[in-house]
Amino acid sequence: MPERIEIEKKVLSENDRTAATIRANLKKRGIASINLVSSPGSGKTSLLERSLTTLNKELSIAVIAGDVQTDNDARRLEAAGGTIVRPIVTGGACHLDARMVAKSLESIDLDPVKLLVIENVGNLVCPSSYDLGEDMKVVLISTTEGDDKPLKYPAMFRKASVMVVNKIDLLGSSDFMLSRVKENALNINGALKIFELSCRSGEGLNTWYSWLRELAGTRPQTKSTKPILI
Amino acid sequence: MPERIEIEKKVLSENDRTAATIRANLKKRGIASINLVSSPGSGKTSLLERSLTTLNKELSIAVIAGDVQTDNDARRLEAAGGTIVRPIVTGGACHLDARMVAKSLESIDLDPVKLLVIENVGNLVCPSSYDLGEDMKVVLISTTEGDDKPLKYPAMFRKASVMVVNKIDLLGSSDFMLSRVKENALNINGALKIFELSCRSGEGLNTWYSWLRELAGTRPQTKSTKPILI
Repeated sequence: MPERIEIEKKVLSENDRTAATIRANLKKRGIASINLVSSPGSGKTSLLERSLTTLNKELSIAVIAGDVQTDNDARRLEAAGGTIVRPIVTGGACHLDARMVAKSLESIDLDPVKLLVIENVGNLVCPSSYDLGEDMKVVLISTTEGDDKPLKYPAMFRKASVMVVNKIDLLGSSDFMLSRVKENALNINGALKIFELSCRSGEGLNTWYSWLRELAGTRPQTKSTKPILI
Repeated sequence: MPERIEIEKKVLSENDRTAATIRANLKKRGIASINLVSSPGSGKTSLLERSLTTLNKELSIAVIAGDVQTDNDARRLEAAGGTIVRPIVTGGACHLDARMVAKSLESIDLDPVKLLVIENVGNLVCPSSYDLGEDMKVVLISTTEGDDKPLKYPAMFRKASVMVVNKIDLLGSSDFMLSRVKENALNINGALKIFELSCRSGEGLNTWYSWLRELAGTRPQTKSTKPILI
């Protein structure tokens, strides 16, 4: 079916152009950005809740929270102290795309923002193909899922810069081995930076917060009062 | 983009035709079939391992195990006593389609088989759109994932006939509430049959096995020595 491939290519290249515009505009404004991806239930929203509660005043974090249905995550994130939270309900689509993010960014006052977090739809496959203009993808995996996931969903782990292993408080309740998940992930992508933490017990979160601070602090802030069209 | 929609419709209707042929042929042979879907790491393979070990001799279960990459699951299922296990590596695709299943069925001697289990790619979104010719979809969810998943991925729970809640041995290790996941799921689909079990502790598995026996036993077996072209 060459027609199908042709159209898919066009859709992706349109997406890539929009993503490049987003990236350039965020860079100009000195805003660091991550695209948070994982299976449903690995703990993206929990990690963001904890991060917002601790860091929002300091970093002024903007969050775009994608879901297939419901704005549950956005509401949880607002309750956790997120002052700039925008839901995107994809209504069936298995990933966010750059156009959705661009549209959402139009409704955000980016002036105070130092860090943009895009919480993608829970899915280890589709979001790997869509650049959203972020600095990097951060892939979450939890200790209750199985330590061979990086081998089974390699594209996502190849495209990510960071892997967060969540729910380490539950280590020992299954056959999941921390050493094995790290070995598998590094076999797919030797450059992965790895965090081990538990959003429930709090273990490991300080290291994660320090990294977010560093990420948001590395950008020169050249604020402008003019809105930037994306 | 009307062209895109048009092509998607065509792909789906081609898939539906293939699925209808599979369904008719399985019915003719008296083979019951389920399409097992869930997030990555909910325990599809674990549930199948346990089911094969206990029931394979009795029911002669054929398994088609789909994965984006690796044949890890198929190898686990063979090690658990699965005598008819076929891997499908989708090489990036986020779901199985009917054509993949039809091709895989060609390599299986269906004569002794009473139950066909298709283990789909770990994904709560894409597999909901693809009929594989199965009698019913069985959706797994584990207690470590979050009890609002039925609301966030409604299409899958709407299209499923059965919901299995796995990892009930880990209840209490998070905020997940059994009553809430059932309420959410039944709000989406009031006809869902629900099982609660733990593949690790074994709790609840006997009820699941009884149901599989019943499912496989309800079909009249009209075996033929002629291969059926799908």
